Amino acid sequence: MILCDIGNSFYHFYQDGKLWKQSVKSVPTLDENEEIYVVSVNEDALARLSKKYYTIDLSDTLCLDSEYVGLGADRAFACYAANDGAVVDAGSAITVDVMQGGLHLGGFILPGLSTVVESYAKISTRLDVGFNMGVNLKELPQNTKDAISYGALVSIIGAIKEASKNKFIYFTGGDGKFLSRFFEDRSAVDDTLIFKGMLKLIERDFVC
Amino acid sequence: MILCDIGNSFYHFYQDGKLWKQSVKSVPTLDENEEIYVVSVNEDALARLSKKYYTIDLSDTLCLDSEYVGLGADRAFACYAANDGAVVDAGSAITVDVMQGGLHLGGFILPGLSTVVESYAKISTRLDVGFNMGVNLKELPQNTKDAISYGALVSIIGAIKEASKNKFIYFTGGDGKFLSRFFEDRSAVDDTLIFKGMLKLIERDFVC
Repeated sequence: MILCDIGNSFYHFYQDGKLWKQSVKSVPTLDENEEIYVVSVNEDALARLSKKYYTIDLSDTLCLDSEYVGLGADRAFACYAANDGAVVDAGSAITVDVMQGGLHLGGFILPGLSTVVESYAKISTRLDVGFNMGVNLKELPQNTKDAISYGALVSIIGAIKEASKNKFIYFTGGDGKFLSRFFEDRSAVDDTLIFKGMLKLIERDFVC
Repeated sequence: MILCDIGNSFYHFYQDGKLWKQSVKSVPTLDENEEIYVVSVNEDALARLSKKYYTIDLSDTLCLDSEYVGLGADRAFACYAANDGAVVDAGSAITVDVMQGGLHLGGFILPGLSTVVESYAKISTRLDVGFNMGVNLKELPQNTKDAISYGALVSIIGAIKEASKNKFIYFTGGDGKFLSRFFEDRSAVDDTLIFKGMLKLIERDFVC
């Protein structure tokens, strides 16, 4: 059994504790005898995978307790695994969802860190100065590169703080590890969260 | 005497209490007998204006008390006028600067509101759903449009809150009025702030 989470940019795979990913622009090479359980927010990439392999789409099988209309399957499965606390999936977009005792309270979406950094360059070439990952957030910046780095980070971290209140935060996605540093006392990085949700549903014979 | 602030997107003009603006892609029609005092962060647009009119560039004449390397002339003049408090210029980029008794403590830059909203569409067509200006920031969103609107707004407002602490905030720029609503008890909208700084310097015979 292989698990696959298809996002905007990558196929994310999981098998027996092993994680790997590859661009949605490429065609994955997998064991053809394995069943591939999939959640996807990217129809084209799912179609390409299903053309070559036997896939079982779990996207619409989960009945998460939520009022949210149009919750992506990836977010739903990560929330289902977390059960309680905030779930932050930091990829090309950053989704922030809040769970309380199995109930999904709602969530919001931020542009991802690289998207924010790239957006400065599009405003003006004067702002195309790169990103300082080590910028000090405790002091106001004194040059353009720090001003942009501080702005990009404070906007993301401030929004996560605002919504998560004092809840525990599960970080996942490409920038999850980096962002978790700013919530050290109450966060964990878990790149298997979506897969844990999928396994939980499979183990429960698809009864939420 | 005409005052002109040239940004990334617009020429902003001021004369005897009258304000007007036009795209930097167009060529302004002005009284040729008037001296035009200019601050600019857009060299090409300044060159085009100077080709047709007699301009006096104030950009490098101001000696604001600041450690900041590369502070745009527009930010410096707005800060010079404010003297104390936070100065937020919300255009295609949002600059946030903090002043204390005439001293510039530092500042940072966020992508502007429209830039943030547009950046969602570039991540995925699923996120190309527009912006709800009336989204409720007191409750977690329950659909994609609100999730994006909440994310865009909370990231900007949270960052301004974080840096301004409890200081008074001067808002200027195209989105200044809209953003000021979230700081009603301690903010003012002043679209003439940069021009006030220019007039202050001119009245003091260019002695900061």
